[in-house]
Amino acid sequence: MNHVDKPLVGILMGSASDWDTMAAAHKTLDEFDVAHECNVISAHRAPEALVEYVKSAEKRGIEVFIAGAGMAAALPGVVAAHTSVPVLGVPVESGAMGGQDALHAIVQMPPGIPVGTLAIGKAGAKNAALLAVSILANKYPPLKTALETYRATQTRKALEAKLPVD
Amino acid sequence: MNHVDKPLVGILMGSASDWDTMAAAHKTLDEFDVAHECNVISAHRAPEALVEYVKSAEKRGIEVFIAGAGMAAALPGVVAAHTSVPVLGVPVESGAMGGQDALHAIVQMPPGIPVGTLAIGKAGAKNAALLAVSILANKYPPLKTALETYRATQTRKALEAKLPVD
Amino acid sequence: MNHVDKPLVGILMGSASDWDTMAAAHKTLDEFDVAHECNVISAHRAPEALVEYVKSAEKRGIEVFIAGAGMAAALPGVVAAHTSVPVLGVPVESGAMGGQDALHAIVQMPPGIPVGTLAIGKAGAKNAALLAVSILANKYPPLKTALETYRATQTRKALEAKLPVD
Amino acid sequence: MNHVDKPLVGILMGSASDWDTMAAAHKTLDEFDVAHECNVISAHRAPEALVEYVKSAEKRGIEVFIAGAGMAAALPGVVAAHTSVPVLGVPVESGAMGGQDALHAIVQMPPGIPVGTLAIGKAGAKNAALLAVSILANKYPPLKTALETYRATQTRKALEAKLPVD
Amino acid sequence: MNHVDKPLVGILMGSASDWDTMAAAHKTLDEFDVAHECNVISAHRAPEALVEYVKSAEKRGIEVFIAGAGMAAALPGVVAAHTSVPVLGVPVESGAMGGQDALHAIVQMPPGIPVGTLAIGKAGAKNAALLAVSILANKYPPLKTALETYRATQTRKALEAKLPVD
Amino acid sequence: MNHVDKPLVGILMGSASDWDTMAAAHKTLDEFDVAHECNVISAHRAPEALVEYVKSAEKRGIEVFIAGAGMAAALPGVVAAHTSVPVLGVPVESGAMGGQDALHAIVQMPPGIPVGTLAIGKAGAKNAALLAVSILANKYPPLKTALETYRATQTRKALEAKLPVD
Amino acid sequence: MNHVDKPLVGILMGSASDWDTMAAAHKTLDEFDVAHECNVISAHRAPEALVEYVKSAEKRGIEVFIAGAGMAAALPGVVAAHTSVPVLGVPVESGAMGGQDALHAIVQMPPGIPVGTLAIGKAGAKNAALLAVSILANKYPPLKTALETYRATQTRKALEAKLPVD
Amino acid sequence: MNHVDKPLVGILMGSASDWDTMAAAHKTLDEFDVAHECNVISAHRAPEALVEYVKSAEKRGIEVFIAGAGMAAALPGVVAAHTSVPVLGVPVESGAMGGQDALHAIVQMPPGIPVGTLAIGKAGAKNAALLAVSILANKYPPLKTALETYRATQTRKALEAKLPVD
Repeated sequence: MNHVDKPLVGILMGSASDWDTMAAAHKTLDEFDVAHECNVISAHRAPEALVEYVKSAEKRGIEVFIAGAGMAAALPGVVAAHTSVPVLGVPVESGAMGGQDALHAIVQMPPGIPVGTLAIGKAGAKNAALLAVSILANKYPPLKTALETYRATQTRKALEAKLPVD
Repeated sequence: MNHVDKPLVGILMGSASDWDTMAAAHKTLDEFDVAHECNVISAHRAPEALVEYVKSAEKRGIEVFIAGAGMAAALPGVVAAHTSVPVLGVPVESGAMGGQDALHAIVQMPPGIPVGTLAIGKAGAKNAALLAVSILANKYPPLKTALETYRATQTRKALEAKLPVD
Repeated sequence: MNHVDKPLVGILMGSASDWDTMAAAHKTLDEFDVAHECNVISAHRAPEALVEYVKSAEKRGIEVFIAGAGMAAALPGVVAAHTSVPVLGVPVESGAMGGQDALHAIVQMPPGIPVGTLAIGKAGAKNAALLAVSILANKYPPLKTALETYRATQTRKALEAKLPVD
Repeated sequence: MNHVDKPLVGILMGSASDWDTMAAAHKTLDEFDVAHECNVISAHRAPEALVEYVKSAEKRGIEVFIAGAGMAAALPGVVAAHTSVPVLGVPVESGAMGGQDALHAIVQMPPGIPVGTLAIGKAGAKNAALLAVSILANKYPPLKTALETYRATQTRKALEAKLPVD
Repeated sequence: MNHVDKPLVGILMGSASDWDTMAAAHKTLDEFDVAHECNVISAHRAPEALVEYVKSAEKRGIEVFIAGAGMAAALPGVVAAHTSVPVLGVPVESGAMGGQDALHAIVQMPPGIPVGTLAIGKAGAKNAALLAVSILANKYPPLKTALETYRATQTRKALEAKLPVD
Repeated sequence: MNHVDKPLVGILMGSASDWDTMAAAHKTLDEFDVAHECNVISAHRAPEALVEYVKSAEKRGIEVFIAGAGMAAALPGVVAAHTSVPVLGVPVESGAMGGQDALHAIVQMPPGIPVGTLAIGKAGAKNAALLAVSILANKYPPLKTALETYRATQTRKALEAKLPVD
Repeated sequence: MNHVDKPLVGILMGSASDWDTMAAAHKTLDEFDVAHECNVISAHRAPEALVEYVKSAEKRGIEVFIAGAGMAAALPGVVAAHTSVPVLGVPVESGAMGGQDALHAIVQMPPGIPVGTLAIGKAGAKNAALLAVSILANKYPPLKTALETYRATQTRKALEAKLPVD
Repeated sequence: MNHVDKPLVGILMGSASDWDTMAAAHKTLDEFDVAHECNVISAHRAPEALVEYVKSAEKRGIEVFIAGAGMAAALPGVVAAHTSVPVLGVPVESGAMGGQDALHAIVQMPPGIPVGTLAIGKAGAKNAALLAVSILANKYPPLKTALETYRATQTRKALEAKLPVD
C-alpha cells in the first residue's frame, strides 16, 4: 500500500487492472494538491484487509473514500457499510457487460447505506475526484477557491474549442 | 417556495409529482435536524428560475444540493453546472422506462461536472439525505455523532428482524 | 436468529421483506427434511454480524449457503468472500429495476470467488434449494434417492397437466 | 465560434470530439446550400454561454437547432428550454454505454419541452439535417424542390446497388 | 377517417387502441387552434391505404405528420418514406416491452429518411404536438406568439407548484 | 395429451400456465380449420417425453410445430433439435424479466438449428398460427385462399376503426 | 437485381452493406440447390420498388421471403404486409445498438402480420435459409431428404470437434 | 471425446469455439488435481449424444457438470434436465449480444431444474471450477484443505498488487 502523510481522500480499487480507470481520480486530486492515498483491496478476495483499512483510514482522518470496481462491484458498498464518511463509487468498464453490471451493483444501494455514484469509466473517476474536492471545499475554504478557479478555466477552455469548419 | 432559516441542504425536484419520491429525503434530514428547503423547479420548464435559485442558494449558505427528476432528468446536471457545491442526484421512477432513463441521464455526467447519483426511487432519496448528512458531518461534528448513532440503531434494528419460521 | 440442530444449509437474506421470495427455498428444503436455518443479516447494514455468522456457521457444519438479496445485492458475494463452502445466490425482485440489478450484482462475480446464481425471484429460491439438495446428495446417499424420486414425481406431474381444449 | 451570414440552422455539440459525428449534419446542410453555423458549447461546462448563444441565435433568425451530445446528454433539452424554435437532438455514441445513455437523456423529455430525436451517431446527424431541411422546406419552396430531387436521387442510387452474386 | 378542412397536421396511429396515447397530441393541437386530422391506418395491416393517405394528405396541404405506434412500430418510418414533409414519431407503450421496442423501431431510422422521435407514451404525444406547432410557427407568425405565450404560462404554472411541507 | 385426427400443426408449451398466451395460436388455427393438437411438455421437467412426442408427431404428419415457453425457454430449440419440420417459437411473458429472457433464449439460436421467432406474448402466439397457416398454404391451396380472405378482412376492419373525435 | 429462373426464395436486404450478413443465407440455399434471388431494396429509401417487387415475386412463384435489415428494420414487416407468403426476418448487426434495435423492430410485429425472426447477424441469416428449406421441404420431398442428410452431417461434424487437451 | 480415469467433473461446451472460454475451468481444476473430462456436445446439433453422455457420465461417477454455451444457450439446462447431479452454467461471450442472451438462457431456469450460473466469459469459467471444487470439498476433505490454501494464496497475492504511484 502507498500512503501519503495525512491524506484526506482514500482511493480504493478492487484490482490493479482498475488503475487504468482510477488514475484519473488520482491525477485530478493531484491537480488540487489534495493529499490522498491509492490502494488495491478487493472486497471479495481480501475482505478482512478491506475492513481493517477502512476503519484505520477513517481514524487517520480520511474524509472521503473513492472506490472503483468492475463486474459485481461490491467494493463501494462494503466500504460504505464500514464507515460514516462519504463514499463515492466508480463503476469500472470491464468484463462482458462493459460496466453496466458494475453500475447496477454500485448505484442501486438499498436504503440506509449510501454510495454517491459517478459515470462508468474514466469520466466517472475524474468526476469522483472533483466531487471529493467539492465535499472537502465545504470545510477547507482554499479548496473552494481552487475549485472555482478550476471550473472557470474549464469553462474558458470549453469555449475555446475549434471545429475544422470555416 | 418554502424556505427554512439558514438551510444547509437544498432539495430540488423537477415536478411536484416527484414529491412522493423526494419526501424520503426531506424526512430523513428532519430526523437529523438538518435545516433544509424543498423546492420544485423544472430544469426544462423554468430554466431561468433554476439558475437564479441555485446561485442564490449557494450564496445563502446551502452546502449540499439534492436534485431528483425523472425521464430525461437534466435537473441534477444543470444544478451542478451552476455551482461548485456537492450535488446529489436521485433518478425518479416515472414514465415508460421506470427510472432507467433518469438513471442514465443523471449518472453518466461527462468529465468536469460531477453528480453523485443514488438509487432509483425512494431508496435513492433517503440515501441522498444520508449522504448529505455524511458530507456535512465532516464539518459539523455533532452530525458525525448523530450519524454514527443512526447507523448503530439501523444495524441493531436490522438484526432484530424476525422471520415467520420457528 | 432461528437455528435448527446441526443444520446443513444456511439460508440468508438481506431484509425481512425478502422472505416472501426466500420462503420457497425454506419450504423446498423442508420437503427433503434437510435441516437448515433461516436468518436476516444485511451485508450493508450489519456487515460485522454477517461475517461472524458465516464463520460460525461454517464451523457448526453448514455445507451450503443460500443467500438472497435485492438491488445492489452484495450479500451472496460477501458470504462467499468469507467461506470456502458453496454459496448459491438468489436475486430478489425488488426496487425499480425488478431484480435485474440484483442479478448483475450476484452473477457477475470476479474470478476467484464464485457464487452459483439462480433465477430472479421465487423460481430462483426454489431452485437454490434443489441445487443445495443436489450438492448434499453427492455426500449423503439418501438425499440422492429422495432427489431422484422428487424429480420423477415432478416429471409425472408435468405430464399430467391438462389444457381446457378437447 | 464560426458563423455564416444569416444562418437558418444552428448546429451545436457538447464537445469538439462530437464533430466526428456532427460533421454529417454540416455536410448534408451544405449539400442543400442551407446557411448554418456550427458551435461547441457544453451545457454542463459552459451553461451561461449556451443560454446566451441560444437566445441570440433565435434573434438572429435561426429557425432550427440541431444539438448533439453524448452520455448524460442535457444539451438538446437545455437548448429547447430556452427557445421556441424546433430543436432536433442527436445522441452521440461515446462512453461506456455506446450512446444509449444519450438516447435516453435526449428522447425522454418530459411534457412541455420537445426535442425531435434522431438515431444514435452519424446516421442521426445526417437525418437531423434532412429533417431540418424538411422543416425549412415548408416555408422556403426551393428547398422543397431540392429535397424532392435529393430523395428521388437517393431512391435511384439505392436501387442501383449491386451484390457480388450472379 | 375524420378530416378537418385544410388541416396542417395529420395525426396517424397504427391501431385505435393507440388513441389513449395519441389523444394528447390532438388536445394540444386543439389548444393552439391548429387544424388537424386524426386517422387510424396500420402500416402492416393496411399498407396501401397508408401510402394513399400520405400522398393525398401532402397534396391537400398537410405540413407535419405525427405518427404513433407500438411494438415493431413501422408506421412513422413508412410515412416518412412516402413524403418529404416533416414526420414526428411517438412510441406507444404497449406489449411486453413497454414501448422500448417501439422507441428502437422509430428512432433508429437509417440515414436518408428522418423521423423526429419523441418520448414513449403520452408525454411524447403531447410533445409531438408542441414540436409540430414550433415547426409551423416558423411560417405562421401568430403560432409563434401563441407558442411563446403557452411556454410562459407553462413556466409560471411550473413555479406555482406547492409541496405539502411548511 | 389431446390429439386431433391427422393434425398438421403441433402446439406445445412448457407449462399449463402458458395456455393463457398460447390459446391465441389455437383459436387462430381454429378460424382456419387447420387440424392441430395442443400439448404441455416441459423441455426441462419432461425431456424424454418431449423427444418422444416430437419424433412421433413428425411421423404422424405434423408439418409445423409452434412452441411457447417463458424464462430460459429451451422448448422451441429442443423441439427444433429433434425434427426437420419448421419450428416457430413464442416467448411467453412470465417471470421477473417479462419475457425478454425467453425472447433471447428462443431467437438467438446458434447456426444449424433454426427457430422462427414471433413477438413476446399473445401477439406472438396469434402470429405463430398465421405464419403456420402461411407455411401450410404453400402446399394446400385452399389455405392460401383462406389466408388471403383473412388478410383482406383484417385490412378492411383495420380501416373501419373509429376514433372518438369528430 | 439478379434473378434465377423460377426462384423459390427471395432474399432481400435494406442496403448492400447487409450482404456481409445475408450472404450466409445465399450460400446455404446454394448448398441445397434451392433456386433463389438476392436483391437490395430499402423499405425506407425505395418503398414503391419494394412493394412492386414483393407482388411480382409472389406472382412469379416465390414461396418464402428472407428479409434482412439493420437499425429501425422495417423491411421484413413491410414485405409481410404485402404478401401472404411466409416471411423470415434477419436482424443485421449494424449501427450503435449492435442489432438489438433491429431485433426489436423485426420480432415484435403486432398481431395479424407475422415475421418469423432469426438470430442477429450471420447465424440468423444461415438459419433463415435452413428454415426456408424446412418450409419448402413440406412440399418438395427431395428437400426433406436433403435437409435430413444435412442435419445428420451437421451432427456428425459437431461430434468430431476436438479440443486441445489430451 | 477425451476422458480421464474416474473423472469427478464433466466440462461440456456447445462448440469447440467455446474452448477459449472454458479452458479456464479446465486449468483451474488441473491446479487442484481434480480428475475431469472435457467434451464438445451441442444441445441443438447433437441432442441425442448429449443425453447419452450425461447419463453415462453420471453412472461413471461424475459428481459435478460444468456446461458452457453462447447465444440461446440451452446446454446447461438440458444437462440439468437429465441428471440429478449439480450443474453449473457458464454463459459464453459470443454473437451480437455479447453473452447477455446466454446469461438469460442459462440463469432464468424455471422452477424444478436448477443450474448454478456463473459470470459471462472466462471469469465465469474459472469460478465454475472453483465452485465445483467447493462442492466436492464437502465430501473429499483434502480438497477442502487445498481450497483454503488456494484462497489464502489468492488473498495474499491480491494484497501484493502494486500501483505505479509512489
